[in-house]
Amino acid sequence: MAYHCAMHGTAEMIFTGDELLRGDIVNSNQAYLGERLLEVGLFATHALTVADNLGSIVEAIKAALAREPDVLLISGGLGPTEDDLTREAVAQALGVALEHRRELLQQITARFTFLSMNMPPSNRKQAALPVGAAALPFTGTAPGFWIEAGTTLIAALPGVSRELRTMWEEELAPIVRSRLSIQTGNEGAGVIVRRLRVTGIGEGTLADALKDLPWREQGVKFGTRAGLSGITVILRGGPAKKARAGVLYLESRVREILGDKVFGVDEADLAEALGQVLRQHRLTVATAESCTGGLVAKRLTDIPGSSDYFVGGVVSYSNRLKTALLGVSETLLATHGAVSEPVARAMAVGAVSRLGADCAIATTGIAGPNGGSPQKPVGLVYVATSVESEIEVARFTMFRDRDEIRERTAQTGLDLLRRRLLKRRPVDT
Amino acid sequence: MAYHCAMHGTAEMIFTGDELLRGDIVNSNQAYLGERLLEVGLFATHALTVADNLGSIVEAIKAALAREPDVLLISGGLGPTEDDLTREAVAQALGVALEHRRELLQQITARFTFLSMNMPPSNRKQAALPVGAAALPFTGTAPGFWIEAGTTLIAALPGVSRELRTMWEEELAPIVRSRLSIQTGNEGAGVIVRRLRVTGIGEGTLADALKDLPWREQGVKFGTRAGLSGITVILRGGPAKKARAGVLYLESRVREILGDKVFGVDEADLAEALGQVLRQHRLTVATAESCTGGLVAKRLTDIPGSSDYFVGGVVSYSNRLKTALLGVSETLLATHGAVSEPVARAMAVGAVSRLGADCAIATTGIAGPNGGSPQKPVGLVYVATSVESEIEVARFTMFRDRDEIRERTAQTGLDLLRRRLLKRRPVDT
Repeated sequence: MAYHCAMHGTAEMIFTGDELLRGDIVNSNQAYLGERLLEVGLFATHALTVADNLGSIVEAIKAALAREPDVLLISGGLGPTEDDLTREAVAQALGVALEHRRELLQQITARFTFLSMNMPPSNRKQAALPVGAAALPFTGTAPGFWIEAGTTLIAALPGVSRELRTMWEEELAPIVRSRLSIQTGNEGAGVIVRRLRVTGIGEGTLADALKDLPWREQGVKFGTRAGLSGITVILRGGPAKKARAGVLYLESRVREILGDKVFGVDEADLAEALGQVLRQHRLTVATAESCTGGLVAKRLTDIPGSSDYFVGGVVSYSNRLKTALLGVSETLLATHGAVSEPVARAMAVGAVSRLGADCAIATTGIAGPNGGSPQKPVGLVYVATSVESEIEVARFTMFRDRDEIRERTAQTGLDLLRRRLLKRRPVDT
Repeated sequence: MAYHCAMHGTAEMIFTGDELLRGDIVNSNQAYLGERLLEVGLFATHALTVADNLGSIVEAIKAALAREPDVLLISGGLGPTEDDLTREAVAQALGVALEHRRELLQQITARFTFLSMNMPPSNRKQAALPVGAAALPFTGTAPGFWIEAGTTLIAALPGVSRELRTMWEEELAPIVRSRLSIQTGNEGAGVIVRRLRVTGIGEGTLADALKDLPWREQGVKFGTRAGLSGITVILRGGPAKKARAGVLYLESRVREILGDKVFGVDEADLAEALGQVLRQHRLTVATAESCTGGLVAKRLTDIPGSSDYFVGGVVSYSNRLKTALLGVSETLLATHGAVSEPVARAMAVGAVSRLGADCAIATTGIAGPNGGSPQKPVGLVYVATSVESEIEVARFTMFRDRDEIRERTAQTGLDLLRRRLLKRRPVDT
């Protein structure tokens, strides 16, 4: 999908590192920086990964500068080893010398002292920067830097994701923002982005439901990104002051249409959303899992503080344990089979009574790849939820492989309970 | 880390799609193709992501061709919409026309018929290819193609990962392999890669343990990639006939040094390795989890067929459930606290007796971010394993955030049980 939105300008990214080209590592920095650049009003037109070869990196920098982006980010190659070439490459591309910075060496030395380590001699080279460059303070072990080249701001960041993210957020983003606002006289400009997290609806159905909203009239771009933990609806507007109202207006329309299918914004997790509702209602939850094998409990306990409302769970993978731990009757299992509506119901009943919780999520199904039959194919799943002893059971046919069937089943279980609780009046606080 | 190995030649990759530059999607195709290219003896020197802009894509193709790689892969832009520009861009870059292929249109039409869908008129454009190009049969909805340009083979693949992978494996890889063997007269040449999966050792310790092996003498490159599910030790040799012996020799030396810390090769999973050992010994396993909250059970049940040896588990998040479900005495909990050696032991005992298994893995710890104290800091974890009623408990201080502490704890539990079982004589079969 092409992106044709009025914006301040353009950016480019260069990533160095043979490991990214050999496929040892997936380059998640590119997506991270692409999104951050959009937030400051810059669309990345090119993102190049180039081998650890001085000539290639110099050539790549020159080619990027020829296109005159507002910002050129270079990630990687700031370490102490001989294939860390970014400092040298920037200097060569700009035709300036590398100069040794006494104060930077002091910082590097201090860093090693702080870590109670001896500094290897090779780390001295990290104190050399192109003439005219400004150092970006440490976020890890490698100092970054920035330098002007014509109308382009070049910035060199570490390749390690954790360090790159901190350096962008704490050091570089303010510099880029201030530079853009100086250039344009439009402080705070940039793309406005809203991300709504949605579950319990297919991506096609969702797109249909939203397609007649006045996107064009409001100057707002609309996109979706689907995953096993739900769909993200992304609303984007151009320069902020004009578009903010449009994005916020359309967000409210989207929320109207999707109702309780929206469970959060940005990086929100459904298990966290369920946890919030449980807290509001002062209810506890237990799990009884067969096909999801602990995944529902795992997702609930991914959330810090979940011990406030999650009491525990049972993974009753064998029929014997469905009986022993949850009290599912042997007759029921023999009559209907483990993957059935009555057994899902009995598991939820057992979870509530045996584990002593107000609510329960129970799952039973055939995750595959084997174990299916014409009557009960791979992907057949029953999810039961109990809210204060009222049980509801839903039947699904999940698709694709074992992992996806399990992930979708867990997501569905969390969502069914969340939406049932949302229909109740919260406890007054 | 730079990669300087004798090899056949070079490749380049171009990815089109604004969504990759906006950060909506992480480009995992780059790592996938980079690794596949290495396997056929090509090192990717450049991987460029470029916006959906005809001029930019044409410019990128020309710049790549100027460097004369053996192969240029272009991914994305093969769909029916107006921002799908790869066909047009390749034609422009090579200075040839696009021609409509009657037989390709028939295939596309047949595809829609097969899917019981009406073909939209826009899909007709997918039947046009640059003059001189050969179509790559469908793997999804978009046909790919390949074409010669000087000494470079250009191939256009879909952007959708699933389709790209199938098209590479089934259609393009054989073409590239045959082309390289024609050029070099060295059939079957390519990089030989062995990946050993290791756990229970730090990356630094591991590198130290292996550093004196005769890597250089054998012409083998050695690298490591660390993650929460273990370390991958990667051995790479240049053109196969010369290097194969060296790689295999060094693999045997690495296995000697690391012993049972090696749990598999390539994409092997530790839970699967444990499953194999349990099968060999005809033993069953149960879990009792506190801080891992279901993750150990989840990992065991990730493996198809795990119901043969995994009977079930308990997530005893609350102290009450540690007593009710596992029989951990209230006195023990009151005296030592839930995160303690005696409680971990009692949980393993309870798992075996209450769930009726031969072996058990029990975890209790402080995953954080809250709940730590000077005596019991965040990251303190006890892991107990039981093998036919003999219990062993190990104490760890795990680092970093909640997710990592939980992942490392689960990994440790699976590994401790696996290594205990490896010391026993397997049941005769």
